[in-house]
Amino acid sequence: MSTQNPIITLQSAEERDRDLGFGSVVSQARNLRLLNRDGSFNVRRKQSITDSYASYYSLLMMSWPRFIGLVVGLYVAINGIFAGAYLLCGDGALQTTGGQAISSSFLKAFFFSIETFSTIGYGNIVPVTLGANLIVCVEAVSALLGFALATGLIFARFSRPTAKILFSDTAIVAPYNGITAFEFRIINSRNNQLIEVGARVLMSKFENVDGNRIRKYYPLSLEREKVVFFPLSWTIVHPIDDKSPMHGCTREDLIASDAEFLILLTGIDETFSQTVHARSSYRAEELVWGAKFGNMYVQNEHGQITGVDMDRFHAIERVALAQMAG
Amino acid sequence: MSTQNPIITLQSAEERDRDLGFGSVVSQARNLRLLNRDGSFNVRRKQSITDSYASYYSLLMMSWPRFIGLVVGLYVAINGIFAGAYLLCGDGALQTTGGQAISSSFLKAFFFSIETFSTIGYGNIVPVTLGANLIVCVEAVSALLGFALATGLIFARFSRPTAKILFSDTAIVAPYNGITAFEFRIINSRNNQLIEVGARVLMSKFENVDGNRIRKYYPLSLEREKVVFFPLSWTIVHPIDDKSPMHGCTREDLIASDAEFLILLTGIDETFSQTVHARSSYRAEELVWGAKFGNMYVQNEHGQITGVDMDRFHAIERVALAQMAG
Amino acid sequence: MSTQNPIITLQSAEERDRDLGFGSVVSQARNLRLLNRDGSFNVRRKQSITDSYASYYSLLMMSWPRFIGLVVGLYVAINGIFAGAYLLCGDGALQTTGGQAISSSFLKAFFFSIETFSTIGYGNIVPVTLGANLIVCVEAVSALLGFALATGLIFARFSRPTAKILFSDTAIVAPYNGITAFEFRIINSRNNQLIEVGARVLMSKFENVDGNRIRKYYPLSLEREKVVFFPLSWTIVHPIDDKSPMHGCTREDLIASDAEFLILLTGIDETFSQTVHARSSYRAEELVWGAKFGNMYVQNEHGQITGVDMDRFHAIERVALAQMAG
Amino acid sequence: MSTQNPIITLQSAEERDRDLGFGSVVSQARNLRLLNRDGSFNVRRKQSITDSYASYYSLLMMSWPRFIGLVVGLYVAINGIFAGAYLLCGDGALQTTGGQAISSSFLKAFFFSIETFSTIGYGNIVPVTLGANLIVCVEAVSALLGFALATGLIFARFSRPTAKILFSDTAIVAPYNGITAFEFRIINSRNNQLIEVGARVLMSKFENVDGNRIRKYYPLSLEREKVVFFPLSWTIVHPIDDKSPMHGCTREDLIASDAEFLILLTGIDETFSQTVHARSSYRAEELVWGAKFGNMYVQNEHGQITGVDMDRFHAIERVALAQMAG
Repeated sequence: MSTQNPIITLQSAEERDRDLGFGSVVSQARNLRLLNRDGSFNVRRKQSITDSYASYYSLLMMSWPRFIGLVVGLYVAINGIFAGAYLLCGDGALQTTGGQAISSSFLKAFFFSIETFSTIGYGNIVPVTLGANLIVCVEAVSALLGFALATGLIFARFSRPTAKILFSDTAIVAPYNGITAFEFRIINSRNNQLIEVGARVLMSKFENVDGNRIRKYYPLSLEREKVVFFPLSWTIVHPIDDKSPMHGCTREDLIASDAEFLILLTGIDETFSQTVHARSSYRAEELVWGAKFGNMYVQNEHGQITGVDMDRFHAIERVALAQMAG
Repeated sequence: MSTQNPIITLQSAEERDRDLGFGSVVSQARNLRLLNRDGSFNVRRKQSITDSYASYYSLLMMSWPRFIGLVVGLYVAINGIFAGAYLLCGDGALQTTGGQAISSSFLKAFFFSIETFSTIGYGNIVPVTLGANLIVCVEAVSALLGFALATGLIFARFSRPTAKILFSDTAIVAPYNGITAFEFRIINSRNNQLIEVGARVLMSKFENVDGNRIRKYYPLSLEREKVVFFPLSWTIVHPIDDKSPMHGCTREDLIASDAEFLILLTGIDETFSQTVHARSSYRAEELVWGAKFGNMYVQNEHGQITGVDMDRFHAIERVALAQMAG
Repeated sequence: MSTQNPIITLQSAEERDRDLGFGSVVSQARNLRLLNRDGSFNVRRKQSITDSYASYYSLLMMSWPRFIGLVVGLYVAINGIFAGAYLLCGDGALQTTGGQAISSSFLKAFFFSIETFSTIGYGNIVPVTLGANLIVCVEAVSALLGFALATGLIFARFSRPTAKILFSDTAIVAPYNGITAFEFRIINSRNNQLIEVGARVLMSKFENVDGNRIRKYYPLSLEREKVVFFPLSWTIVHPIDDKSPMHGCTREDLIASDAEFLILLTGIDETFSQTVHARSSYRAEELVWGAKFGNMYVQNEHGQITGVDMDRFHAIERVALAQMAG
Repeated sequence: MSTQNPIITLQSAEERDRDLGFGSVVSQARNLRLLNRDGSFNVRRKQSITDSYASYYSLLMMSWPRFIGLVVGLYVAINGIFAGAYLLCGDGALQTTGGQAISSSFLKAFFFSIETFSTIGYGNIVPVTLGANLIVCVEAVSALLGFALATGLIFARFSRPTAKILFSDTAIVAPYNGITAFEFRIINSRNNQLIEVGARVLMSKFENVDGNRIRKYYPLSLEREKVVFFPLSWTIVHPIDDKSPMHGCTREDLIASDAEFLILLTGIDETFSQTVHARSSYRAEELVWGAKFGNMYVQNEHGQITGVDMDRFHAIERVALAQMAG
């Protein structure tokens, strides 16, 4: 028997379809979170390939302050380089036509470069020699390309579909219709409308199979798998009935078996009709047993629900599970 | 039994699938319109989170006059600030090289700033001191970023998929094949082609269940749920046969039960192959019983339909329902 | 019985699904082509609503020469207006600093406006009065918005998904496996790759139903409804077997019943992963009976097909149908 | 019987659905690779139609160095042409206002053109005659359009959805659960996340049907057809069981029958939520019999998989197939 791929060998085809792709590589890893809370993966490529896309991708994903800082930094650096080039053309390459209080040749060249690269061109400093004029040509076309690149990048950053779905800090096991349910809640923390929001929840845990500790994946059936409208918050509920893979499990069982609840959300951002994705996970340790989510709805004087108070989003209240189940 | 979520507790799974997401939060609200006529939701988040996306989203969704007004206002403000900065550099910081009829130092600095920020740079006013030159550097890079941001935003506003589907002012209950039908009509009020246009209609009303007034949701089956082509108008028809949840209801019944007809349209805007969405709703009070839609087709001399007259779009004609049903 | 909507009344639900949306409005029109050869619809809205989208849409859809002509025209007009405004500021508002051979005040103001709007700002003509400086401020911000709008529009024109699928000039009835088949062929006339190309063909013709001439719609089953790859041309074939609605029809029958073959293609343009649509139609008169498509494949010395010769794309060769069917 | 389309005539409908569109044109070609390793097609259109899209498409698909080279080249050419135009206006058309060390009239005109086209406008050289001023107007509007076009193109190049999925250099026939399997592996060589990655594999080979050598297409069933997550690499496995079309085939059989394995991947690039496609193929000669893929996972001190080492991506290790099957 092949020893190359023991996990796949042990999984049935049905089980393979459940693991969503994790199984192929990371099933052996113990005590390693599969998904981070922010939805990023916990394994990385050791990159040995460089391509132009990598820097583009970085420019796209970095924060706005870093991005603007980088643009400003490049702006200063480029003008510094051109200033150096003008200096190399000699003393008479640049001529000051008006009054000028700058005595440093480098600063004069630098300010001339700024005026050139930004296409201001006051004309208080002008290029007079062939060399300086040729450098102006190069700087002018660099500016053209630089502006176009910056504009393109800024728009690419704008047009990227992103969702900012907030997940409750904790998932809970709550009383539910005489039994209990695994629950967490989500809210769209932005002003845009998300529609057709769907959820998939997987429980992953280690089990002993023929003496080997193997990571298994179980889909959790949900009370509601999709909402067409998502105007406010949505509490996602997995009833722990006798068909649930969580049935009979205690908090200690789940922690011992290194359980992790993987959550996958998709939706359509109506602003640009773009599909957006959000991921998160809860570890067994992040699950509160015997709790319910606090009320976060704002009501008017007539008792009508008119909104959601996001400050109360993470609030849970303790309830006794035994008392409820009795 | 859980008292946390009485609505969901009372709903069967099938009913849950019908409410499209409203049920999860707003089912308890009475006399509250679920959807406004323009398709916006009637509940709002009490926002307590600020992120850069919020202002981006506002810049994207505001009207063109407001957007342009804002850009112009920012332009004046930014140049005012830079003018102040140049003034702080002292009297000799800016030098007028040509004739200049402006005596106010602030106005001179302001016009210099305009020439700099817009990268015109006539050179009739030039920076001479180190301070003024450094401010020019800052203003030049601000201009670069400002232009790129404005261009990116303007394009983002352009490329947003939007539909302007007009809904008839009233929905009607019209004679239809010996019975009656709930009808409304829609038209694409733009020149672009919409294709694959589909409609979903839900009736929501309050009912007494075990003494509680509960909002219920019923899908209405349509004569035709989708049109591949939508060249002109489309009258959406729900025949009120004996399987219809409207069967046997009177106008008064629907008003008393706070009925609302929720309409969801999706289609593909052929211009950019983008999916677009439109929503609207009719309240029971906006439903005219005993009417039919007026003819809005334009015919040529041979009696051929050659177009649609949008001025006649909302027109209805009264017809006696009893007479038709007899 | 309702007389409001006789066509829909007469159609069964199944038939309604077949007409793809045409039935709802244009079924009564005789001798009116439903789809033009270029895929546009033959009915138009009589527009009475103006919105900003209409002009945007026009700017998006017009040809490049017209678009560039419009931009240049606007450019000249805007500068003409600003030139007039500078003239109104009086004689000394603009001052010529260098040598200037232009004596016309208007031309001088016009060239100054060009230098300002394009942000060149040589400084050979400069604004000296308050009025002239204020107009410069207005012109500078107009230029900023104008550039951003032009750039946004130009990119929106670029990024629009469009397909240029060529349809053979004629559809044919060709011998096919002992019977005959309705055939036409298509080719992607661009260099981009189209994938997942699917075709739907409908035959529409008038029939007498209870003494009324009613337009009916029949889907034609295809030998192959989709190709995952579309590297070269594709001959779309509807075999006229005994289940075909064309079975037993002659050329004269189809012309007399005003038959039209409506063709709908969808595909994915791999360049931007965008879905593209193409439509066309053949009238009964455009159908050649007894023909086959000429060979358009280019073969190398080994007899291998290496490409397609687009000059031979429309070529058909006459074949006797009787002889084949015999 | 029709001799027009022998391949299609011989194929059953089911077989036609399998060939994905290749069958319609290239099934007759022997010894011709259907798909190149990089996923491009091996047949080309002999283009006889020119449209503006063709040049746009080229500008979109060329490499960045070529694109930037082209922009720079055009920039120099345009300024050369305008320089010539200024020269034609005569000696006094351009006036040097400051010191100028350039004696060549052409160079002076060229530098003036650069200052104008880039909208710098120092004012050290200024247009004085009507002719020169009119050319400035033309150059200014050309610059505006040129910038907008360049910016639009650069962004279009950025926003194109592209995947860079690496395919292992060789496909292998490896021991697998007591039988053998056809395997290859893929990796996303970029930093972006691909999700919902699906694979389709077709084996194409020539067979003798009634004495004719006909290309046939067989889909290969995969152990797993889709992964929702694709964090690291994915080994795509077709088990060669007794239902496999490869069952009983030897390496020599496949080479003799000109076998080619066509691979189609689709996925969603999470960066822009865009669907991306990748294609590749292996010829029978590129298939290594009796091998397994080397371990490319990086493990930490606890034996946990933490990443992938791309340098080991193509590595295979020889294993004896007979020994495994025994």
